[in-house]
Amino acid sequence: MAKKEKQFVEDITPMEVDFPQWYTDVILKTDMVDYSPVKGFMVIKPYGYAIWENIQKYMDQKFKDTGHQNLYFPLLIPESLLKKEAEHVEGFAPEVAWVTHGGDEELAERLCVRPTSETIICSMYSKWLNSYRELPYLYNQWCSVVRWEKSTRPFLRTSEFLWQEGHTLHETYEDAQAETLQMLDIYKQTAEELLAIPVVTGQKSEKEKFAGAHATYTMEALMHDGKALQAGTSHNLGQHFTKAFEITFLGRNGEIENPYHTSWGVSTRLIGGIIMVHGDNRGLVLPPRVAQTQVVIVPIAQHKEGVLDKAYELKKVLGGEIRIKIDDNENYSPGWKFNEWEMKGVPIRIEVGPRDIEKNQVMIFRRDTLEKWAVSMDGLKETVKKLLDDIHDNMLEKARKYRDEKTYYVTSLEELKKNQEERPGFAKAMWCGERNCEEHVKAETGASIRCIPFEQEDLGDKCHFCGKEAKHMIYVARAY
Amino acid sequence: MAKKEKQFVEDITPMEVDFPQWYTDVILKTDMVDYSPVKGFMVIKPYGYAIWENIQKYMDQKFKDTGHQNLYFPLLIPESLLKKEAEHVEGFAPEVAWVTHGGDEELAERLCVRPTSETIICSMYSKWLNSYRELPYLYNQWCSVVRWEKSTRPFLRTSEFLWQEGHTLHETYEDAQAETLQMLDIYKQTAEELLAIPVVTGQKSEKEKFAGAHATYTMEALMHDGKALQAGTSHNLGQHFTKAFEITFLGRNGEIENPYHTSWGVSTRLIGGIIMVHGDNRGLVLPPRVAQTQVVIVPIAQHKEGVLDKAYELKKVLGGEIRIKIDDNENYSPGWKFNEWEMKGVPIRIEVGPRDIEKNQVMIFRRDTLEKWAVSMDGLKETVKKLLDDIHDNMLEKARKYRDEKTYYVTSLEELKKNQEERPGFAKAMWCGERNCEEHVKAETGASIRCIPFEQEDLGDKCHFCGKEAKHMIYVARAY
Ligand SMILES: [Zn+2]
Ligand SMILES: [Zn+2]
Repeated sequence: MAKKEKQFVEDITPMEVDFPQWYTDVILKTDMVDYSPVKGFMVIKPYGYAIWENIQKYMDQKFKDTGHQNLYFPLLIPESLLKKEAEHVEGFAPEVAWVTHGGDEELAERLCVRPTSETIICSMYSKWLNSYRELPYLYNQWCSVVRWEKSTRPFLRTSEFLWQEGHTLHETYEDAQAETLQMLDIYKQTAEELLAIPVVTGQKSEKEKFAGAHATYTMEALMHDGKALQAGTSHNLGQHFTKAFEITFLGRNGEIENPYHTSWGVSTRLIGGIIMVHGDNRGLVLPPRVAQTQVVIVPIAQHKEGVLDKAYELKKVLGGEIRIKIDDNENYSPGWKFNEWEMKGVPIRIEVGPRDIEKNQVMIFRRDTLEKWAVSMDGLKETVKKLLDDIHDNMLEKARKYRDEKTYYVTSLEELKKNQEERPGFAKAMWCGERNCEEHVKAETGASIRCIPFEQEDLGDKCHFCGKEAKHMIYVARAY
Repeated sequence: MAKKEKQFVEDITPMEVDFPQWYTDVILKTDMVDYSPVKGFMVIKPYGYAIWENIQKYMDQKFKDTGHQNLYFPLLIPESLLKKEAEHVEGFAPEVAWVTHGGDEELAERLCVRPTSETIICSMYSKWLNSYRELPYLYNQWCSVVRWEKSTRPFLRTSEFLWQEGHTLHETYEDAQAETLQMLDIYKQTAEELLAIPVVTGQKSEKEKFAGAHATYTMEALMHDGKALQAGTSHNLGQHFTKAFEITFLGRNGEIENPYHTSWGVSTRLIGGIIMVHGDNRGLVLPPRVAQTQVVIVPIAQHKEGVLDKAYELKKVLGGEIRIKIDDNENYSPGWKFNEWEMKGVPIRIEVGPRDIEKNQVMIFRRDTLEKWAVSMDGLKETVKKLLDDIHDNMLEKARKYRDEKTYYVTSLEELKKNQEERPGFAKAMWCGERNCEEHVKAETGASIRCIPFEQEDLGDKCHFCGKEAKHMIYVARAY
């Protein structure tokens, strides 16, 4: 069998040349995802899906630790339910898929494939809730949702995606607000501690908030091309839905009240974020805590006596907590394997050959810095565990530094426009808080208000775009 | 606050009086499930969903231990794909939900909500597979599917249910057959080792097999009312789909070949099986390994000094591996709590009051045998862990004994009919293997061939129903 020496790296378009093409090359060539026969729908392949499983595992534990339980609501929602809350139906009706027939029969009422589940969940909550003693309701569901998108890109915007949606009820506005912010904080922890993605957290403007929400909070990350990604949102829904759906309870003062309501979600979009924050021109760079394979062992001169045995011995020693794999494929050379696993973003490569064995050492390569050095086989497990943490910390720090370098101040619409063209990134500015000003900025620059950050800075008294009195400091950027 | 002393048990219809009503009472009163606004679709509430999560965790590990990986395929399947394999479309087309509109636009081609994913998966496999070196493909997906059912019952038959569907490709027929049987064996382990449900395994008749399968294997359990439940199936699909979808690979002899194909699935129907195999007139009896709460601590005279402290201390001691809960609600008496947790089927109740504390003991109640006795607080964790295993073993044994008592031989159609009326259960008989004979038996008795068991018994030379030469020993029963 001839050795294949194809250079995978040459197949990936450099990101400086064409960032969207770089993204497409990376996700397809690393086998994370594929296009399906239905336009706008993706197949998530095992190498991508494993990341989602690791995200689920981490978040699900955080949800349970904060008292939430999982449940499951139907996929299909009657049109009449979707229409019960006015803002909500306006926001979602244009992008839902409609089921009109069951088998050969036409349905009396159309059903939509859930674009999100507030309406059907509220219809059930209204049946279930009786007394303030039963509150809070702290429920979450893992599922897929469908939103008919005209222009799609795998992970980032697809007509179907996987997500979790939490839906809670509370006795008071304050309780709902505390829940909304608690969940946003769990999202931030997930981004930073699991995915090594630094995020800015804050509130969405009225224009950008969720259809039907009292207030929407968001975490925003900056991608390598200087565009923002909304990576997770948490909504304080007030009593909009609980009134529309007549959810009531007997309050502690003996009066019938409407509870306060939150919802919050993150999706497979996070995987797109991982790719675009950490990736480079060799391909993926996976954060160690979500990588399917954390360590790959590549035997050198594997036909020589003792090499494969030693490789398997190392796998056994390192295994257990560490997700590890040996690439002992005979049909490919070590060089080819190096390229492949670098492209696939495996955080650590261990090379072991006859000379290493002689010296009781292995060669270690780390994907994030591309450094390679010799390490003693003694205490290798501790070395690797510590290195995985170091890689995480370094990736988070590097991404934070990159983001900060791409974050700047603007003091006029012209400056924003120029900057977004020439050096896209987060722009900070003061804003009057008015919708027509916001819409003008978007129309002129393509950039939208990402959030009113919790960490406000005082950059002046006047709106940098219209000159009126300033209300908030904001982050503005073009976004996915 | 007045103490409520409502006897929940009185609200459950005795199973001898009306088994379907007993089932409905149990699932609703224990908060496992609820009916949704869409006819035939259920809401799985946290107490039911937790069981599904425990099933998923156990099975997913077994799948991974046998080399399978998870991935995700789209929810919607184009009509043209569904129609590519003739038997399959005939089997599923009458029961699919059709999406005809995306937003305001009518779609050029109708899409069905997946009733199962063979077709869309095969369309992707045909794109992906190149060489025998890439085989086997060992993939699984966890998702929901929709089949438009006219008559539904929560967990047992609903228009939407949650399941896993494995879809594998192999180089040879033998490899596919080995996979098919391996997965059936994992299902049997799940039934017996996790759910304490004894099952009969074997092959489905031509009439009862999956639409498009070469051979379907099944595990069949017997419910408390003497009806059978098909609890999981594994299909050797041969090359039916791989030919229809033109999936090919370059074989080791340099020829283009079609791979062999399997699929296998279990669903939330298993939860219905748990209820109907183990439940009694007090309500649920949950197998310890899937119960959301394995142990509930009920403090006695909890207002007395030291009682609640001791209860929390015990929870801390027992926690970790054991899923444990304290019911310290002040508004209900211990007697009310006993009833409630018995109805909810929690395997072990621990009572601790002032007198117990004095004696360094607790009272232990086990749900499966309704026994109650005193146990020393010393070594309580080991006592409880062992007891959870004992309860599992006892439940499995009890269910096996019950099933065996309800399994009998028949030697004629008349006898089968009479037995199914008077003492429903599994009937064993010899069968000629012919479809018209099978259809006659079903029409006359309402009972269907559940399987041709792997463990064949020689009960005679002639078909017990038509007198022709016998080919197989079979299990016959009315079924869910
Ligand atoms: Zn302004
Ligand atoms: Zn016959």
